[in-house]
Amino acid sequence: MAKVVTLGEIMLRLSTRAGTRLQRSESLFAHYGGGEANVAVSLANYGHEVYFASKIPDNSLGSGVVEHLRRSNVSTKFLLKGGERLGTYYVESGIGERSSKVLYDRAYSSFAQITENEWAELGLFEGVDIFHVSGITPALSSSWRALTLELITTAKKAGCKISFDINFRSKLWTQKEAAETLQVILPKVDYCSAGKLDALYLMGIEEKEQADLMYYYEKIQALYPNLTAIYSTKRVVHSSDVNDLTGTLWLDKQYFESKMHELDFIIDRVGGGDAFAGGILHALLTMSNGQDMVDFATAAAALKHTVYGDDNQFSAIEVEEFMNSNSSKIIR
Amino acid sequence: MAKVVTLGEIMLRLSTRAGTRLQRSESLFAHYGGGEANVAVSLANYGHEVYFASKIPDNSLGSGVVEHLRRSNVSTKFLLKGGERLGTYYVESGIGERSSKVLYDRAYSSFAQITENEWAELGLFEGVDIFHVSGITPALSSSWRALTLELITTAKKAGCKISFDINFRSKLWTQKEAAETLQVILPKVDYCSAGKLDALYLMGIEEKEQADLMYYYEKIQALYPNLTAIYSTKRVVHSSDVNDLTGTLWLDKQYFESKMHELDFIIDRVGGGDAFAGGILHALLTMSNGQDMVDFATAAAALKHTVYGDDNQFSAIEVEEFMNSNSSKIIR
Amino acid sequence: MAKVVTLGEIMLRLSTRAGTRLQRSESLFAHYGGGEANVAVSLANYGHEVYFASKIPDNSLGSGVVEHLRRSNVSTKFLLKGGERLGTYYVESGIGERSSKVLYDRAYSSFAQITENEWAELGLFEGVDIFHVSGITPALSSSWRALTLELITTAKKAGCKISFDINFRSKLWTQKEAAETLQVILPKVDYCSAGKLDALYLMGIEEKEQADLMYYYEKIQALYPNLTAIYSTKRVVHSSDVNDLTGTLWLDKQYFESKMHELDFIIDRVGGGDAFAGGILHALLTMSNGQDMVDFATAAAALKHTVYGDDNQFSAIEVEEFMNSNSSKIIR
Amino acid sequence: MAKVVTLGEIMLRLSTRAGTRLQRSESLFAHYGGGEANVAVSLANYGHEVYFASKIPDNSLGSGVVEHLRRSNVSTKFLLKGGERLGTYYVESGIGERSSKVLYDRAYSSFAQITENEWAELGLFEGVDIFHVSGITPALSSSWRALTLELITTAKKAGCKISFDINFRSKLWTQKEAAETLQVILPKVDYCSAGKLDALYLMGIEEKEQADLMYYYEKIQALYPNLTAIYSTKRVVHSSDVNDLTGTLWLDKQYFESKMHELDFIIDRVGGGDAFAGGILHALLTMSNGQDMVDFATAAAALKHTVYGDDNQFSAIEVEEFMNSNSSKIIR
Amino acid sequence: MAKVVTLGEIMLRLSTRAGTRLQRSESLFAHYGGGEANVAVSLANYGHEVYFASKIPDNSLGSGVVEHLRRSNVSTKFLLKGGERLGTYYVESGIGERSSKVLYDRAYSSFAQITENEWAELGLFEGVDIFHVSGITPALSSSWRALTLELITTAKKAGCKISFDINFRSKLWTQKEAAETLQVILPKVDYCSAGKLDALYLMGIEEKEQADLMYYYEKIQALYPNLTAIYSTKRVVHSSDVNDLTGTLWLDKQYFESKMHELDFIIDRVGGGDAFAGGILHALLTMSNGQDMVDFATAAAALKHTVYGDDNQFSAIEVEEFMNSNSSKIIR
Amino acid sequence: MAKVVTLGEIMLRLSTRAGTRLQRSESLFAHYGGGEANVAVSLANYGHEVYFASKIPDNSLGSGVVEHLRRSNVSTKFLLKGGERLGTYYVESGIGERSSKVLYDRAYSSFAQITENEWAELGLFEGVDIFHVSGITPALSSSWRALTLELITTAKKAGCKISFDINFRSKLWTQKEAAETLQVILPKVDYCSAGKLDALYLMGIEEKEQADLMYYYEKIQALYPNLTAIYSTKRVVHSSDVNDLTGTLWLDKQYFESKMHELDFIIDRVGGGDAFAGGILHALLTMSNGQDMVDFATAAAALKHTVYGDDNQFSAIEVEEFMNSNSSKIIR
Repeated sequence: MAKVVTLGEIMLRLSTRAGTRLQRSESLFAHYGGGEANVAVSLANYGHEVYFASKIPDNSLGSGVVEHLRRSNVSTKFLLKGGERLGTYYVESGIGERSSKVLYDRAYSSFAQITENEWAELGLFEGVDIFHVSGITPALSSSWRALTLELITTAKKAGCKISFDINFRSKLWTQKEAAETLQVILPKVDYCSAGKLDALYLMGIEEKEQADLMYYYEKIQALYPNLTAIYSTKRVVHSSDVNDLTGTLWLDKQYFESKMHELDFIIDRVGGGDAFAGGILHALLTMSNGQDMVDFATAAAALKHTVYGDDNQFSAIEVEEFMNSNSSKIIR
Repeated sequence: MAKVVTLGEIMLRLSTRAGTRLQRSESLFAHYGGGEANVAVSLANYGHEVYFASKIPDNSLGSGVVEHLRRSNVSTKFLLKGGERLGTYYVESGIGERSSKVLYDRAYSSFAQITENEWAELGLFEGVDIFHVSGITPALSSSWRALTLELITTAKKAGCKISFDINFRSKLWTQKEAAETLQVILPKVDYCSAGKLDALYLMGIEEKEQADLMYYYEKIQALYPNLTAIYSTKRVVHSSDVNDLTGTLWLDKQYFESKMHELDFIIDRVGGGDAFAGGILHALLTMSNGQDMVDFATAAAALKHTVYGDDNQFSAIEVEEFMNSNSSKIIR
Repeated sequence: MAKVVTLGEIMLRLSTRAGTRLQRSESLFAHYGGGEANVAVSLANYGHEVYFASKIPDNSLGSGVVEHLRRSNVSTKFLLKGGERLGTYYVESGIGERSSKVLYDRAYSSFAQITENEWAELGLFEGVDIFHVSGITPALSSSWRALTLELITTAKKAGCKISFDINFRSKLWTQKEAAETLQVILPKVDYCSAGKLDALYLMGIEEKEQADLMYYYEKIQALYPNLTAIYSTKRVVHSSDVNDLTGTLWLDKQYFESKMHELDFIIDRVGGGDAFAGGILHALLTMSNGQDMVDFATAAAALKHTVYGDDNQFSAIEVEEFMNSNSSKIIR
Repeated sequence: MAKVVTLGEIMLRLSTRAGTRLQRSESLFAHYGGGEANVAVSLANYGHEVYFASKIPDNSLGSGVVEHLRRSNVSTKFLLKGGERLGTYYVESGIGERSSKVLYDRAYSSFAQITENEWAELGLFEGVDIFHVSGITPALSSSWRALTLELITTAKKAGCKISFDINFRSKLWTQKEAAETLQVILPKVDYCSAGKLDALYLMGIEEKEQADLMYYYEKIQALYPNLTAIYSTKRVVHSSDVNDLTGTLWLDKQYFESKMHELDFIIDRVGGGDAFAGGILHALLTMSNGQDMVDFATAAAALKHTVYGDDNQFSAIEVEEFMNSNSSKIIR
Repeated sequence: MAKVVTLGEIMLRLSTRAGTRLQRSESLFAHYGGGEANVAVSLANYGHEVYFASKIPDNSLGSGVVEHLRRSNVSTKFLLKGGERLGTYYVESGIGERSSKVLYDRAYSSFAQITENEWAELGLFEGVDIFHVSGITPALSSSWRALTLELITTAKKAGCKISFDINFRSKLWTQKEAAETLQVILPKVDYCSAGKLDALYLMGIEEKEQADLMYYYEKIQALYPNLTAIYSTKRVVHSSDVNDLTGTLWLDKQYFESKMHELDFIIDRVGGGDAFAGGILHALLTMSNGQDMVDFATAAAALKHTVYGDDNQFSAIEVEEFMNSNSSKIIR
Repeated sequence: MAKVVTLGEIMLRLSTRAGTRLQRSESLFAHYGGGEANVAVSLANYGHEVYFASKIPDNSLGSGVVEHLRRSNVSTKFLLKGGERLGTYYVESGIGERSSKVLYDRAYSSFAQITENEWAELGLFEGVDIFHVSGITPALSSSWRALTLELITTAKKAGCKISFDINFRSKLWTQKEAAETLQVILPKVDYCSAGKLDALYLMGIEEKEQADLMYYYEKIQALYPNLTAIYSTKRVVHSSDVNDLTGTLWLDKQYFESKMHELDFIIDRVGGGDAFAGGILHALLTMSNGQDMVDFATAAAALKHTVYGDDNQFSAIEVEEFMNSNSSKIIR
């Protein structure tokens, strides 16, 4: 099994019961999650040795984060304590035609206010196979833009594969800022989660009518030949509770696509993309066949939609059993 | 913004958790609602000055009604206190093929036992643009039959537009009684919610094979040329939790129909028609285009199905954002 | 109305809230049920005089069983008390593509440890019209294999019709053991629930391509001409919450099939087959037409999927109203 | 074991979660209960053959009543169906210094609207040892005043002991009306639940300073020498959740008093008096010693305060174990 | 009835179920509250015309605040919208010996970031009888220190009585900062909530052994002769759920003390002091007798402890009924 | 910090909501716990390196155990997988005078069926400071009687201090069996939890009237001079929710007693003794003063009563803060 470090912000999510507006909710469900933390949990579930690096306040919500990670067997060795607050966000759960609505309250968080490499003396990348980070982190501040690059560079030097999930968030930075940052980051990346919109608006690739993801993956790799794997999911949104999900993977200049999963009924969509990324990384570490890889990762992402919480809660064996069953019969 | 009075009965609804029979329920959800109250809430959400006129007992359930209305910014100035009881009704929530089942316990309520105009000295219609009432009110008693007519006549004289929702309930009166009452009420009405069954059984319009609502609206208006707007929804019931909903409107002798909304999954269907009526009234007050009107009202009705409770809980801006979004993606 | 005895094990079911894994559940829903107990409840709902024979420990969980049965008007006259424990099982509720997962903890139960006819002196079959038992009972132990046969033989002599639901469970015994037991039991049976897989693997009937159930029923009856009714449901599983269900019945050498019920959304699938069996037995006791019989039983099974718990909670009148309604409109 | 009939009204109770006002409650707990029904449940728990006679509407709430009684092994043979509605009442649960507040909505109920003996042809009193009724029943209407007397007279003739719980409710009738009715009923009663206030205000007994219940019991019996047992509880209310409870009994001209039970914390006080009455009747039927009787009944009443719902849910053995344990240690 | 303006911060409170640690909570209860908002709700309940001035973000949590206030009949006319976030705080509910623990996350809130009088043009004090503010507001920032004084001065000029609740919070400012601010504010105040610790540490009054509050009130008034009423509660904390509460009032140079309320069991202590302040202000506006005043206010504060939420939810009539009842008997 | 191994059975606890009988519970709370596991969690909370050795089935309930332990930072390195089932037990939560009632269903568990040292090759005691086990383990079977002794002997040889909690359970073995086993185990023990009843009935020490624990500790040590620490709590049970708890410790021939904690209101008493034991072990490892030790351990035990679940959920710092606070004031 591999040794993996993921680094990013983790937040408290407060979400409504479906059918209740946020402003009228008398109680809210509490979950902890964040893109890189969710990937960490997936990989720990699959048996890898995983570390989640972040910074949390030294209070009860910080303890909530620690217990969440420990329960999933993610090491908190690189989880720093300090700063003012844990970022929070509120989800008014959508249903049917009505979308889920996210309200962020993440400014001034312990993690966002980091301005220099606080893990410098801690041996963060020693013996590490993969370092995973997402585009949310450089979006948090100009300090974080520099720091993300520095961390990636250091990891690369230490021999890590660099995994990067673009995850563009327009509320955090502009397309221009993101594009400029990607230009310096992507040349150092090995595995990248990117989609068509990223290609068009953040990498300047021209749109081609009716082209599918294979086309854009090829173009992306032409720009960044260092990328050995590019991946993302295609999602057809029928309603908040019914989506079709298909995984795609560009590997060794070949394009792979999973079977389509009809997600009906969706319990909780948050973290679906992270479950896919976690599945791809596990597959890259343990499998040889691109089709197997994308099938595994998509099955993992599909399963994530069936449970509350940001994180995938299934072992590799459970994901495989799920892939191989052809019906939803009761398993007795 | 306009000034609107709606008048009718408001009740306590006690409903089951889906999947549990009423007789085995260890707890019941409590909501307050009624057709005219629900329309009042919709219009208050859209920024109008709205008054709900009714009568409730001077007890804790009456206070529940007051708090419900105040929270939604509906004025309780014309909410009389007195009488014996608040009407209640029980809903055994349906699911899949099984329908929801309603059990009324509304006899002897404070409102039903009104026998004369108790608002006579209160200036109920001063400066009011629209007076909205439904066919449930005259169905409550013979006193209410006379009183409804009297109120409409007074409102008309005071310069109000009269809005009337036929809302025939066979448990309260016969088709014959309803038809006779409508004959005296409808000549005074400006905006009327009526459907095909109303046309056939309450207005004596002959059925025409394969005719759609446009045909019946035209016939209704021929009978009552005073009606400037006639509207209702078409609902295809696939199951208790999956319906297709299309709004229709006859305005200035023109027929408009909204796009069809696929309601899947339905949280709570009660009050869907009232949300449509509220949307139409708002649209009549603020828009010029029939298509815009019916689109807004149908979107409002569709949104109502996504929340628990009898009332629409969305502002005009939220309804418009919903209309303009073309997917159920997470709104971050 | 008829007098019916059903005999079998009843267990405590502990199930998760949909969307939560069993290992992370902070609370579990508790229901009591078992195949034969569920059939007993159905028949009691339909107005028959029903006795459920079993053995439960003399503790609070045993009392839970007693209260469950009494509430549904099933007599506990033949419910013995003693032994060590009540069998339990855990259900991790599936959703969408993910199946429900059952974890049994039923070994060493009071019922399973019975080794001889403990009802011998109690007049179990006096005046009884139908004795119903399932293939789970002989699967519990070799003692139960002998005892089941003995009970059936005694019942037969006492003039009961014998109803037998094959209900093969591979975790309890092998196909070979089951087949040998069926060979001695089935010649005594009148009404049998059996499907294609039973025909193939437990009765040695050869598969015929594209043959439907009619073909297998005919073959089964050729083997066991004593069977006057053979029945089962065909289920197409679209997802854990969406199934299509069709009932089938072989009666007097004729094949009947119900209309297909689209079960969307399924609340709880456990006990669906028992509700079908209960419906068939009621129909055999009270109806003359095979089509009516299978329609009633399938409607009963469809309704079961709309409520939590193992047992059908609808009266014969409610099942019939459900059959005759053609939509899921609100019933006011 | 004895055969007992109790007769009276049963209602749906809707109560709040402690700490929540009724008008703001988003859900309410549902229980079924009524004085005589609660006594019936107690006696059925203790192993007697018990019938509860009443009238309920033929709807889902009526079914709720039936299931409630069946679960507790009370026969519904004399439970008539018909009429308009089931009485309901709302309880805003008190806590600490704040009292529970009851809001009745019981007028026009199926039971209250009975005007003649609808059980006349049903053999209500055949072989019955005790007929139990309370002062709430004659308070419901003038018809019920006559009918209660008629039923008691008939029962008496059939050889029943008459048990009567005065249970004066000032919202239903005046002290004068009650006093007049008691004057004709009490001469026929054998066992009577009555307290000091009943003696003073309904029987015209003069107050004597510092006299305890013994004094009043003696005076009551002087008035009605036919009374062989008079009983009630003394309750010191420290707060809504902390009461001291002592049972008292006048039997064969002797006064007995139980040890004082410190009820802290009280879960649900509704039905405490009925549990005491049920305990006394069981004790009269099965014990010989007055002290044992009052100890058993008070223990039963104390236990009732530890469970939600109107009814005592403990067997005679459990009551006795509770009496004999001298601590609240965990029972392993 | 009077016209009252209260001004301050309002926050979202997220609190645990008693018995569950914050870090392990899977759901949290949501309430909106703040000292001045809670006083506003109390006074609105008592029938006054009340305005709550504050600033909230223009998002769903802001809407939650608006609905909370409207439901309680507090005008939102002076509730500004804008800024970044709504302050939140978390309460890990204590039980028994364990205290409740509060975790604030209030920095950077819309209200805290106000730097100048944003109500200047809105006629905030027109016709207002009382302006109420607390010491939390000047503690928020140096801007707020200046602004609080400015608002008080303006209100004073407009003819308002000034009500000030010292409410010292050591996490927001030092004793020295508070003392300096009080020195300029208190000379303008009419009604002041202050206790012994305020006297000692914020006003420099010397401690006198065994002196009770009367002594300190006298000293405070010697310093600030403008104060016509000084008040606070004495609380003996037996445990998190059992407190004794006594109200005290210094009025017209006389000392009044309420009877002691034994609060057992406490549902929610947050807002108890605000309920007392609200009671005092109502009493000052409507009563003439100091003893009546302090009795009313203490009863209101005691009642607050029996409901969830920050605000008192009882009308003046309910408070008075509570004062006059001498037991916690069920009110039927 | 020290390295500690605890070994024993861990079970699934299913408990009722207070006020609901087990047989009527529609849902049950789920917790994992066991004496030695609870001690492990306490010590991990206090910062020690802790291993819990046990055996669990390889199913979802086993996974529940793993996640429970990981969340609390207890190593699962010695947690074997295999066997048939996880022991379960049901708790009907007591309230007021009514005791909690425990129903065990633990026979045939994976742990109970162990017959030989399955950790033999795993280095269970390498570098371990304390090995903790309880008297429940040898009570499970005669194999376990031998095996417990073998493990203790091996641990002793490896240099571990032996910690033993007598924890006699009459449902598992007789006093005679226990006494015989203790005679061979106690001579090897260093720290022992034992009370007066253990002294009398399991060690044959004679009762001395009015003697307190000091007397019995002295006698116990006379028998087993190897015991360096003997400890237990004295509990006065006022009701299920109100207990007084005092800790006692015999250390170096000196007797120490903590202040008495008034536990009112108790949330969950299960695991209180284990929290005391965990506190003593931590104190023995880190403190020098007997009084400090017993104060810490008793505070830890008191805190445990304020949270749901079997395990203490407080850090050493939190326990100390709790000891040093003298009231239950809100901590802001």
